[in-house]
Parts: sequence; structure tokens; C-alpha cells
Amino acid sequence: MTTIKDSVHDYIELDPTAEALLDTAAMQRLRTIRQLSTVQLVYPSANHTRFEHSLGVYHLASRAVDRLEVDEPLAERLRAAALVHDVGHGPFGHQTEAAIERHIGRHHDEIEWLLADSEIGAVLENHGLEPEAVAATVDGRGPLGELVSGSLDVDRMDYLVRDAHHTGVPYGTIDHARLLYALRIVDGELALEAGNVATAESALIARTLMNATVYRHHVSRIAGAMLDRASERLLADGHVNPDRFARLTDAELLATFADYEPTADMATRIRERDLYKRAIWARRQDVPDRFAGLEYDRTRALEREIADFAGVDPSAVIVDSPSEPSSPESRARLVVDGELQRLEERSSLVAGLDACAREIWRLGVYAPPAVVDDVREAAADVLTVDPVIAP
Amino acid sequence: MTTIKDSVHDYIELDPTAEALLDTAAMQRLRTIRQLSTVQLVYPSANHTRFEHSLGVYHLASRAVDRLEVDEPLAERLRAAALVHDVGHGPFGHQTEAAIERHIGRHHDEIEWLLADSEIGAVLENHGLEPEAVAATVDGRGPLGELVSGSLDVDRMDYLVRDAHHTGVPYGTIDHARLLYALRIVDGELALEAGNVATAESALIARTLMNATVYRHHVSRIAGAMLDRASERLLADGHVNPDRFARLTDAELLATFADYEPTADMATRIRERDLYKRAIWARRQDVPDRFAGLEYDRTRALEREIADFAGVDPSAVIVDSPSEPSSPESRARLVVDGELQRLEERSSLVAGLDACAREIWRLGVYAPPAVVDDVREAAADVLTVDPVIAP
Amino acid sequence: MTTIKDSVHDYIELDPTAEALLDTAAMQRLRTIRQLSTVQLVYPSANHTRFEHSLGVYHLASRAVDRLEVDEPLAERLRAAALVHDVGHGPFGHQTEAAIERHIGRHHDEIEWLLADSEIGAVLENHGLEPEAVAATVDGRGPLGELVSGSLDVDRMDYLVRDAHHTGVPYGTIDHARLLYALRIVDGELALEAGNVATAESALIARTLMNATVYRHHVSRIAGAMLDRASERLLADGHVNPDRFARLTDAELLATFADYEPTADMATRIRERDLYKRAIWARRQDVPDRFAGLEYDRTRALEREIADFAGVDPSAVIVDSPSEPSSPESRARLVVDGELQRLEERSSLVAGLDACAREIWRLGVYAPPAVVDDVREAAADVLTVDPVIAP
Amino acid sequence: MTTIKDSVHDYIELDPTAEALLDTAAMQRLRTIRQLSTVQLVYPSANHTRFEHSLGVYHLASRAVDRLEVDEPLAERLRAAALVHDVGHGPFGHQTEAAIERHIGRHHDEIEWLLADSEIGAVLENHGLEPEAVAATVDGRGPLGELVSGSLDVDRMDYLVRDAHHTGVPYGTIDHARLLYALRIVDGELALEAGNVATAESALIARTLMNATVYRHHVSRIAGAMLDRASERLLADGHVNPDRFARLTDAELLATFADYEPTADMATRIRERDLYKRAIWARRQDVPDRFAGLEYDRTRALEREIADFAGVDPSAVIVDSPSEPSSPESRARLVVDGELQRLEERSSLVAGLDACAREIWRLGVYAPPAVVDDVREAAADVLTVDPVIAP
Repeated sequence: MTTIKDSVHDYIELDPTAEALLDTAAMQRLRTIRQLSTVQLVYPSANHTRFEHSLGVYHLASRAVDRLEVDEPLAERLRAAALVHDVGHGPFGHQTEAAIERHIGRHHDEIEWLLADSEIGAVLENHGLEPEAVAATVDGRGPLGELVSGSLDVDRMDYLVRDAHHTGVPYGTIDHARLLYALRIVDGELALEAGNVATAESALIARTLMNATVYRHHVSRIAGAMLDRASERLLADGHVNPDRFARLTDAELLATFADYEPTADMATRIRERDLYKRAIWARRQDVPDRFAGLEYDRTRALEREIADFAGVDPSAVIVDSPSEPSSPESRARLVVDGELQRLEERSSLVAGLDACAREIWRLGVYAPPAVVDDVREAAADVLTVDPVIAP
Repeated sequence: MTTIKDSVHDYIELDPTAEALLDTAAMQRLRTIRQLSTVQLVYPSANHTRFEHSLGVYHLASRAVDRLEVDEPLAERLRAAALVHDVGHGPFGHQTEAAIERHIGRHHDEIEWLLADSEIGAVLENHGLEPEAVAATVDGRGPLGELVSGSLDVDRMDYLVRDAHHTGVPYGTIDHARLLYALRIVDGELALEAGNVATAESALIARTLMNATVYRHHVSRIAGAMLDRASERLLADGHVNPDRFARLTDAELLATFADYEPTADMATRIRERDLYKRAIWARRQDVPDRFAGLEYDRTRALEREIADFAGVDPSAVIVDSPSEPSSPESRARLVVDGELQRLEERSSLVAGLDACAREIWRLGVYAPPAVVDDVREAAADVLTVDPVIAP
Repeated sequence: MTTIKDSVHDYIELDPTAEALLDTAAMQRLRTIRQLSTVQLVYPSANHTRFEHSLGVYHLASRAVDRLEVDEPLAERLRAAALVHDVGHGPFGHQTEAAIERHIGRHHDEIEWLLADSEIGAVLENHGLEPEAVAATVDGRGPLGELVSGSLDVDRMDYLVRDAHHTGVPYGTIDHARLLYALRIVDGELALEAGNVATAESALIARTLMNATVYRHHVSRIAGAMLDRASERLLADGHVNPDRFARLTDAELLATFADYEPTADMATRIRERDLYKRAIWARRQDVPDRFAGLEYDRTRALEREIADFAGVDPSAVIVDSPSEPSSPESRARLVVDGELQRLEERSSLVAGLDACAREIWRLGVYAPPAVVDDVREAAADVLTVDPVIAP
Repeated sequence: MTTIKDSVHDYIELDPTAEALLDTAAMQRLRTIRQLSTVQLVYPSANHTRFEHSLGVYHLASRAVDRLEVDEPLAERLRAAALVHDVGHGPFGHQTEAAIERHIGRHHDEIEWLLADSEIGAVLENHGLEPEAVAATVDGRGPLGELVSGSLDVDRMDYLVRDAHHTGVPYGTIDHARLLYALRIVDGELALEAGNVATAESALIARTLMNATVYRHHVSRIAGAMLDRASERLLADGHVNPDRFARLTDAELLATFADYEPTADMATRIRERDLYKRAIWARRQDVPDRFAGLEYDRTRALEREIADFAGVDPSAVIVDSPSEPSSPESRARLVVDGELQRLEERSSLVAGLDACAREIWRLGVYAPPAVVDDVREAAADVLTVDPVIAP
């Protein structure tokens, strides 16, 4: 049996299907997609890729199906789905997914199209697996699909620990070995054995702390917003076909930006870490409801309005008003006194963590350093917020 | 400069005062007091001592005074206080402190008596430090005393990380390097620079998770309660002088128990991990208010009453009803928009963590395995609670 | 299945036999024997015990028999032997074993007597295992006994990593997961699959580096020699029965020293870290052959001779001339081109490491600080060595 | 002061010069050069970059100059040189340096040209540093230049630990904190204080073990040889200007290969991990001296000869016969009895490690899988070696 050394899980053993899947070009491409995309601009060690993360998720899925004594071939389907679950990611992962969805109407978890008639699909079929069933599992559907995508999934168990390991922050509080020991199948659904409230909470805590210090760091949000606007321009102008776009690597996207005049500046700025700065950074309570969680078209219209006020080019203003945070982990099921309960029903901490997630929400308006003061003033007027940078 | 290798902080550099203090018998005794006393009965790797913890607290204090640019000789006083802060601990640390307080009316943080006219006192004086001032600092009083004992103290920064390291649980979420970078002195008081809410919360989170999985683990609470009852017996019977008692090592206390017939059984049970079992383990909402957070005399009276009902010897019943948890960390000060605020005013998470702390509260009644069923029935009657073991 | 959290191997799963064995008083006693005895006087974090080490060795044995597909009941015997392999250790482990051997003629690996007619023996029999067979396995005899005690044993794999983890030195270079993957049974004997020379060498390297920085540190050797002399006195005087001596805990031995006037000084010195100092510390090439690797009687005679010359009490001189180092790891077998070869035949590094081991050899003469200069002069005369402390 | 979180050294504090240097495009480019280039094809977690490594080397240099009490402005020069020491690296670092040297006659450590008249040069001058002096320091020349490039340099201290951390192998045995504590300046040269033989050896050991398991892994050597041949083709054909070539990123080089028909196949093979295989893999003792450590022209001629024999295209044969290994660490100076000695004079281990390095030497001949058998036969004939793959 082939084994691979991993910096998080040590040795990972591959079954023959996994080995064949790894040899496909689509899986090898994940070596070029950084797991945390532009977070490395803040945490320079965060260069781990979706390839090693995929191996980690596969490893945890293997251990889970062993413990849960899931029979073959379902076990094999779950392992295969865990391994390929990120194969639909575009360049820079989550940071281009909105642009891709706008232009091809498909989320990265919907990979049925990708598995059909493809090298991966052929490998799956050669090993007796149906591509559609694997694709459904990746999307959290079908028997035990929630193990791959759900409130207790192995995807999150891996990425929280791996992201903490590579950024260097001490917030990877997931005790994944204990979570795996505590997993049970009750009426066909995953649940945690009694006595594991703290273990389940710790996953939620980890994500809350990682959001505050890593995932929602303003430098990463700025870089992400810049990537989105440049991607939109490429796609809206028809400069790149959306399907081809979705298969680019991180570096190829930047190269594509660089080669097209309207996006060339963004490429240079990201490569040289000469990013837009915050003109506005406002807490939820300081933002009128009508400006929180904006639709994309409305966002772009506001950008033009602010740019107009500030007398700058529309591309010099980025408005970033994310939707309210969600916490799927709080829906995790626990066996309590023989009954299934949701974590949120059992844990007073969940409400606190939800509040905490809302507290780190910020409305951002970003602009090139040279015009950031003008944009601040204009944005404060248009959005009726204070022209300040909240801590 | 002498350096010592530590498994948590790597190399620790000692100033001459620290080196001389380490050579005293009182400091060397701390090598024999386990930091987590009986937790090693649950987590076998938790054998670290108050000696290494003391070195760790000294190290963090040194780094803090460097960063805060505290002048000598105050800096030296703070470092010395950090090093000796646990020298007043009796055998098994916190697990005998209530018994000691009942018999000598003194808490382990009150070490003025210990520093006066002692080897440690002499060392301090030889190095130009006043023992009383050092003792006050250990108690959190005087200039920057809160660095040693307060809402942001280096004691907690060390023990949370060290306890996590040695138990193996992944909940040592303190980023102490960042906490130290963020420390400021504002109007003579310690505060965290703006933008460190998540850092401050993480300390509180760490303690909450450690409470749930380590510090309040029922096996450790049972062993602690057994130690308390045996200690009380020794002291009440006058078998050991309280001052001598307070200076015993962990092993010497067990040996003393073994040598005295009324406590010999407790010694054997702890040594062989043949502990009392839970007869009752009830959540706060299932316990009448009058039985929550009991005074010691009332506890002992209830034990006798339950023993009487159950027809067993009074020593075969232990009632353990702790007081409500407190969270000093939530009082930590943060600089927000130039003003000082308490963490609890800034963080919605604090309320959730407080609720969480209350949720892990349990009323326990413990008895030897042979009579645990009889005691359960009797205790349920006397305390009007359900005869069950809550998860 | 019961699981235990370990700071080195994370979760360890116990089979029913292991669980029952852990409940014996003899196994629980190992919680009170520090794995590295007096090394904690140099590395304050080195407080781990033979109990957690025993769990670790059990864990590695479990994984090894799984990988090697060893059938039950041999697999169970190997796991049980791994768990109890250190149960014969006296107080302070290796540091009293010579004294015990002199007085009861038995090495700590010979535990047949201990398993017969004992609580452990009964547990083994209840679970269908023969105590004699388990005892033989602990001694490295019988089928696959070398897995527990041999050139590739799981004992060493655990302690090298564990000792590095707890001292904080970065020299636990054993990749035990890879060693376990590489294990093969060839003609009934353990060997490493081809391509693992570096893996095998790394075990040898780890021990060499640990010897130089930890195991042979002079402070630990001095404390060990002091323990030996005090133990000898206790036993020679008949103050303690040898069999009882062998079952004491670390703390009980110190208490026994303290209670007996001729050894009381040693107890105080070790407790307060007020140790003998080096009078002589000489390299192998600077020591006449007749003084290298001395028999015990000869050593004691030299001590008396030196004391006489120096005009001090014989108890004030300790001569410590260890035998030449051995390296069992170099006998490990590797499969090379289908043939078995010893590591030492394949690896040029082995000779270098052997030379390295000889280089750290030192002849020591130790004495109380007050008389160390007098003893140095006398010892230099008697032993015809230079009166210096080699680096 | 700005601080950056690093996964190896935790927080790194930047002086103003460092902060300004980091903002240059040349330093930001290092985010796109993997420290271990193609090693990630074997160890998927090895995605760390020369950017984070540069920060680590800067950090260790800062600590070293603090400890050695080096005065400003020399200290600042050393820190700046540490930070920019890798700025001369081409794409894929060491794996294209031979090609670059052949075409522009310059090694990556010669960066005088790069610092003159450049953004970096301007930053250095603005902060009062002479670019030529910094360039000399990077090359190991001038006062304390050996701290940046020499037998005890901070470059190696960082990369050994960092590479081990990211690959997941346990061989980062450098105790860099202790090395830094032990550094002394004796007669203007760096040396280790007495008593640090084991510490110095451990650095050499780490590199030996890393060579065997990571740096000289055959998959990495094959990928490196493929990169070299494709780079040579690009440069020899004049498809890319050598100076531009030297400034490409890893991804840009692959894209350049892909865009040029003669190298397109290499790009696909590396991207999809569909590499050449070993036709020959022979130990030093099995290779005639005339074929060990070949000049480049001779190598290419042999390739053509083998290809001719095998009836395949010359591009389908790669001969890889590295020169003998060197070990600069063995020249490290130690203070012994007040005199300076080289480590190799003091340590018997050095010879063993040198032998060990020679043992892992292999002559490799690589070819596409489809023709590897034909190439093996032809290569065995031409090189008069056995047609086998040594372990």
C-alpha cells in the first residue's frame, strides 16, 4: 500500500482508487491552488495547497468509515468523494467562486459535470464507482454524504487544524481523533456520542477564532475583493471563457490579469503586495441595514456612485459588505439521554459564538493608497457611515 | 547567564536573583508538587510540576517587563514574585488548599509569613528586594502586581499552555507571544492595545475548554475530594501540625495518610487508582438552589445524613457541590478608541463562556464502589435530586 | 474500547487484558517512577513516568502486531509484555538497578518471579496468557520477543521520542511510524524492508545525541551515583529488605534515606539539589586502561584510597567509571537485495556513532563542594589522571 | 515595530530597513519560489517559500547579532544581508542554478549586480547601507559574513528546521537556540563555545538525514534534472533572455516551457507528475570513476550516445551524475581548551557522516516510462554499470 507523508497527519495510506485518482491532471492541479489563497500576504507561512488538504480529508474519511464500520462499496465512495471534494475549485479557491457562479451558475461543490466524461470519471468507473454518486456525496447528499459535507464533516476537521498549523496561530482546537471516536450513525445520520459537547463546541470555537484572526483578516479580504473585481472584468469582457477560467491555477490567473490591460494593475498590486487600503471599516451596528449583506449588482452600483462623488475611476473603489455569518457546526447532532439534539439546543456557547461572529463582521470600502482619503469621504457620504477604521 | 531548557518555552535565562532563589529548599520542593495533582489519574502524561511552571511564569514575566520597559528594581521584584508565586502551595496544590485554609486561615497566595525570616526572604534581601513587597506582588497588590496575579497575569498564560501540552489536549489556545506584544500600561494599570479582543477571548476560551475536559474532570474531582476529607481528618485529629502539613510533598502526604489508620484506605485508593465512584452527578438546573455551592460544615452534615440513610460509615460518602465559577479574565482591560473597557463589555462571547462554565457545573456525590448504589438512593432522597449520572 | 490520551501518541486504545493489567497495584506504582529519574534536576520538564512510557510501548506493539498480521494469541502476549515490560523496575529505575542486582542477583528485565503468584500473573491467566511466556517475551526471548526487547524494539522507539518531547531537546529523530511500516518478519525474525537504512540509522543517531545531551549529563550521573551509594548502604546494612527495596517508589526511597542517619545527608542533597561536584572529569584517552570500566568492588576500594589520601570520610568520594558503551541498534537487520544484513554491515555511520559514543565517555570522581578540591588532588594522584574537568 | 507570525519562529520583529526591503518587488517575488522546489512532488506539504525562509534567516541573524553584541551599523548590514540573501535565486531555486550559471556565469549568491541600481539597492542606501557591502556579506565575505554564509550560518539553521517542519520528517535536529547561545567571536571569527560538540554535530546530522530522505530523493532529482534540460533548451535556443529567465517565478517558468514546443512536454510532465523513471540507479562503488561527477558537456554527450544506442530521441535520456558531497559544517570552529579547533578535528562522527553522504550518492539515468527499458539496456552498456535500481 502506498503511503504519503503529511505534515499534519503523518503517514496517509492510499487505497488503489485513491492512488489512481491522484494521478489525474485534475487532482495534480490542486498542487497549484493555495488552500488559503491570499492569506499568505498576512501569514507568510500559509502556503499549503488544496492538494495536501484533499489528502488530509481523505485520511480522516478513511479513519471515520473504519470506525463506523461502513461496508464497502459505500466506504470506498466516501473516501473517493473526500479525496476529490475540492476538484471543482477555481483559481484562488473561495476568492473567485462568486465570479464563477455569476458566469457559469455553478458552485464549486457541484462537480457532477466535472466527473462525467472526464479522466476522474473514468478512474472512478474503472474502480466500480458511479461518478454521479461520488458527486452527490461531495455535495453532502446520499448515504453519509454529511461526512464529507455537513455539520460534522471531515473537510472542516482537516482545514481548521491544517490552517492553524501553517499560519502558526494556536487556534486549531479541533481534537479530531476524539471527534472520530465519538461519531455514531443513528437512524442513518451522523451524531456524536453523549459527553462530547465540549468536543463539538471546540470545532465551532476554532472556526470563530480562525475567522477573527485569519479568514476575515482585512488584508485577505481586500486581496480577495481585488481578485473578484479583476475576475469579473475578465469574464464580463469575454477575455477568458468561464469554463477555462474555472480551471486556471493561481499563477495562471495572475498571468492572465497581467496580460490584459484593464486588469494588469491588479496583477501587479497582488504580486507586489501593493494592495488597496481601507477607506471605510465599519462595525455592523454602525452600518444602516440597507447596506449590510449587499447583492452584487447593488454593490457595483454603489462603487460607481462613490467613485463619481470622489472623482476617481470606478475601478478605484471596492465595496465589500458580506452577508451575515452562518455556523453549520451548531447544527451538529449529539446523542443526549438516548435522544438526538442539535448542538445549538445543548450549548449556551453557541449563541455567544454566533454573537462573536457578528461582532467581527465589517463593512469595508477599499481604494488605492493615492486616493483612499477622497474615497473615504465620498463613501462615508454615500453609505451614511462614519469615515473611520474600526479596530 | 544561566539558561534552563523548558519543554514549553525552550530556553529560559535566569537573572542572578532567580538563580539564587532556585537554590532554596522551598523552591526545590516544588519539583515534588505536580501542577495538576490528580489529573494524571485521567491524563497519564500530566506529570509536570509547579517547579517548571514557576520557571515558565518567571520567563513570561521577564519578557513582559522587557516589553513594557519597566525599570529596575521594580522589574526585578516582578520577576522574583513570578518565580516564587507558588511557593506557598501545600501538597497536591489546590486540592488541599481548602483544608489548609480551614486550619491555618491562610490562602496559598498569602506568603508574607513564608518570605519573612526564611531562606527565600534572606535571598531576596541579599539581592536588594523587600520580602513584603514581593509577597504583596504575589498577591496581586502593589505596582503592576496584576501582572503576577490579575485578569491578564502571566501565571495563567503559562499554565493554560503548559497543561494543554502535557495532557495532550489541543486547547492551549493562548497566543502568549501576542498577548505580551499587546500589553500596555495605561494609568498604571495593565491593558491590551486595541484590536486584541480575539486574543483576550482566546485566553478565556482556553480556560473554559480546559475546565470542561481537564480541570473539572470527574475523576480528578473525586480524587481531590478524597484528598480533602483525608486531610481534614489528619488535621482535625491533630495528627499533623497544620504548618508542617502545608510543607509536605505530594508523596509525603500520601505516606502520612498510609501511616495513620483512619486515612490509610484513602492512601491505598489513590495510589492504586481504586477511587470512589459517582453516586450522583447532577446538572445545576436539576439541583435545588439550597444544595448548590455549599459551605463546608453543611456539606459534612449532609454527608452524615446520607450515610445514615444508606447505613454506611460517614467516611463512605463525599458530597461535592462547588461554588459558581468565576472568570477573572473577563475583567481584562482593553484600549478601545483611546478608552479603557473591560473585556466583558466588549465581547459577546464572554456571556456565552460564562453560561458554558455554568453548564459544566455538577453536583457530585461519591462513594466506594461496593456501596455506591445504596449511597445513590440515599443521596437522591436527602438532596431531592434524580439518582442519575448526567453526561 | 477504552482509550487514553497520551501527549506523544495521542489516543491509545486498550484491549481488555491491558485494561485489567492497568488496574493492578504493580502497574499503578509506575506512576511514581520517573522515566528519567534524576534527569529532571537538569531538564526540569522531564517528569514523565514509566507508566505513560509503558502505555506508549503497548501502543507501538499493538500497531506493530497489526501491521505484521501476527495472529492471536501471540499478538496479545506481545501487547501484554509490552505493557508490563518495566514492572520490574526499582525506585529511580536504572539508577538503582546495579544495587538491586548486587543484592538480589536479578535484572529488572527478569520478571518471571514477579509475574508468578501475583496480581499481574492472575490477570494474565484470567485472560488466557501464560505468565512465564509473557516474562520471557519481556526478556526478548520466544517468538518475536525481540519486538519488546531487541535491536528494533518498540521500547526504544517510545522512549527516545518521549524523552526528547519532555526534555525539550530536538533529538527525538525516530520516525516510528516509518519504522513500523518497514518492519517485516523474515524467517521468524524482525527485519526492516530494503530502503530503510536512513530510518534505522536515525534511531541510532537519536540515542547518540540523547546520550550526549541528556542521559549522560554529568548532573544526572552524579545524582545517580549518589543514589547508588546510599542504596548500597541501606541494603548492606540490612536496613531494608532487598525485595521490599525493589518495590519502593522514587519518593519512598528518598524518605527511607532520610529516616536512616547514614543516608540522611544524601536524601537532603538530592531533594535540595545540593549535589556532589566533579573533582575529576576525564576523557577516555586520558585515563589509564586499568581505571576504565571498573568492577564495583574495585571502585569502592579506590574511593577509600582516595578518601584516605584526601583526609575525608569515605562517603565523601564517589568514583564513576562506566563500562564502554554498546549500541544494540547497530545489530538491526535489513533486507538488502533479498538477503538479511546487519545495519553495522551496511552503514558507515555506525562506526562514526560508535566512536562518538566513546568520545562522550568520562571518568568521574565526585565529592561534596566543601572538599572537592582536596578530593581532586588526591584522586589525580591515585588514578594518575590530570586534576581537571574536561569539557 | 512590525511583527510577522511565522510557523517556525512564531513572531518575527522587523526593523525599519527590513520592513522597507520586504516591500520591494524582488523580495515579494520570493513568495512564488518554493523553498524545496519539486520536493513537494514527494512530500505534498513542502510548499513553503523562499520568502518565509528569508524572514526566518533574518530573525536568526537578529538574535545572533543581539547575543554577540555586534554594534550598529554592522548589525544592520548583517540583518539586511540575511533578509535578501536569496533574492538572486532563479525559478525553482537550486534546480535551475546550474543552467543560469552556464548562461550568465553567475551564482545566485553573487548579487552585487542585483543590488546595484535596483529598488533593493535604493532601499539599502536610503537606510545608510552600502549595497556592495551587503552583497559581499551575502557571499560570506567581510566582517562576520560567515554568519550569513559559512560553516555556522543562520541560513542553514533556518532551512534545516523549516524543511523538516514542512515535510513532516522528524530530522530537524538543530537546536538553533542553543547554537545561538553558544556563538562567540574569537579573533573576528565565529566559533562555538566549549562543550558544544554535540550541538555542532547535530547540525551535520540533520543535513545528512535530510539529504537521505528529502533533498536527494530520486523523484526530486528526476524532476530537477528535467527542469535543467528544459531550461537549457530555452536558453540555448535563445527563446528567453538569461537575465529575464533568472527572474521568473516557478509558475512562469512552467508556463514558458508550455508555450515553447520543444519544452512543452516537460511542462506537462511536471505539472501532472508524470515524470521520467529511473533506468539506472547505481551506487558509487558500482560506477567507474570516469562516470562519477561528470562535467555538463560530457553528460550531454553520454546522453546522446545512450539515446543513439537505444534508438530514442536524445531528449528522452537524462544522465545525472552529481559531484561528491561536501560538508561545510564540518569546518565549524569550536573553542577547545582556549584554542580554536575545526569540528572535524574534534568529532569522530564527522568521518562517519561523510561516509554516509557518500553512501547515498547515486548515478541516475532517467527516461520516459515508455522507453525506460530500452534506455536501461543502452545506458548499462555505455556506462558499463549493472542495469538495476539500487535500493
